[in-house]
Amino acid sequence: MKINKYKKNADYSYILGASLVIDALNNSIIEKIYIRPNLIESDSIKKIIDYAGEKGISIIKSEKPFNILTNKQNCFVIAKIKKEKRSLENKNHVVLVNPSDFGNLGTIIRTSLGFGIKNIAIIKDAVDAYDPKVIRASMGAFFKVNIEYFDTIEDYLKKFGDRKLYSFMLDANEKLQTASIPTGKYSLIFGNEAHGLDDKYKDFTTLLLIPLTKEIDSFNLPISVGIALYEFTKKDFE
Amino acid sequence: MKINKYKKNADYSYILGASLVIDALNNSIIEKIYIRPNLIESDSIKKIIDYAGEKGISIIKSEKPFNILTNKQNCFVIAKIKKEKRSLENKNHVVLVNPSDFGNLGTIIRTSLGFGIKNIAIIKDAVDAYDPKVIRASMGAFFKVNIEYFDTIEDYLKKFGDRKLYSFMLDANEKLQTASIPTGKYSLIFGNEAHGLDDKYKDFTTLLLIPLTKEIDSFNLPISVGIALYEFTKKDFE
Repeated sequence: MKINKYKKNADYSYILGASLVIDALNNSIIEKIYIRPNLIESDSIKKIIDYAGEKGISIIKSEKPFNILTNKQNCFVIAKIKKEKRSLENKNHVVLVNPSDFGNLGTIIRTSLGFGIKNIAIIKDAVDAYDPKVIRASMGAFFKVNIEYFDTIEDYLKKFGDRKLYSFMLDANEKLQTASIPTGKYSLIFGNEAHGLDDKYKDFTTLLLIPLTKEIDSFNLPISVGIALYEFTKKDFE
Repeated sequence: MKINKYKKNADYSYILGASLVIDALNNSIIEKIYIRPNLIESDSIKKIIDYAGEKGISIIKSEKPFNILTNKQNCFVIAKIKKEKRSLENKNHVVLVNPSDFGNLGTIIRTSLGFGIKNIAIIKDAVDAYDPKVIRASMGAFFKVNIEYFDTIEDYLKKFGDRKLYSFMLDANEKLQTASIPTGKYSLIFGNEAHGLDDKYKDFTTLLLIPLTKEIDSFNLPISVGIALYEFTKKDFE
């Protein structure tokens, strides 16, 4: 048995821990399931074993994958899943330009799903959404959204330019709270954690500001995304 | 020179890195400043050294504190600061009940300051706000807010009960977006990351819900705080 640490360019990823593996069961292509030899049979473990039995997925009892892939002693199950290309639906999108933090991306995925946005575009260079750290931070939301990477914003616009586009920038004049929320499709665009968005976004998007005091430089990225989505999806929750 | 790792019950904390130390300069009692012998004199470093000179704070050139307190090779400055008790002003508050995550607390401090809320109550048991991990996650906002710990919510209410109290709970009926925002003082109360708030909060607060789809269990704590503060402080940014 050869176990390789997760790598960005691999065609597989690893899901660590029973509750995340359960989220993955019906939402991804599972290649193998590793369990610790000394594991205690909980309901979650039983569910995973039953599922594997039904689908003919091999279960391997061994400490080795755990020694290589995690330092958590309370992780008893790891699933190896196949990476899939999941294209975006032509619905409302969150667009992240050059996101660089694993935890932030996971939190944004979870938050977007919470507001009913299931399609996230990522403009490269960017963090790898299949990284186990992203999947963990998403708390399983990763398996219920479509994430598509684009080399450039222009490539994204070729496919999805025909909609309202909003960019969140610190030098925007229009405040989020007074913006008129479109009834048709929209994309909400957010820049990198440290640099924000280029000035070129001013040419083809409506700029919006989440107002803040002068005492901080900016909100952190998931906070900005969460607030923007709250305002844009309010009407969907009436 | 004896350097102890940071401990919750110590009467000092450590600030790691030049930009955070600069935030600390005028906003905390600095006992000592450690610099690496091989440091490159940047503008930030010069500013720190000048400040220390003016205030008579001793600067110690040594690798030792860095070996003990950080594994970051690009950390060139550490300040040892005295912990202070900073009582809350009788203004609007964020109240965190049993927060348990360092990064979350730091992000909440930064977000609150961004919305102009400078007073945060923490109900024990709770994470230690002076932990260097909290200060780092706050990106310096820590030095500009008052944080007061209370043993119980009852202790908090004895001092600050005479105001509008709002609890954010998943089984609340009233939605945040349709709540009437008070013109007088208020406190926004949030529970622990995993358990939320006890049912007892229903007896003495107005319950509010940030609506979400059934596909996630909850938003993460800083996201909820950010969205609530956005809605409550909107009128302050008109």
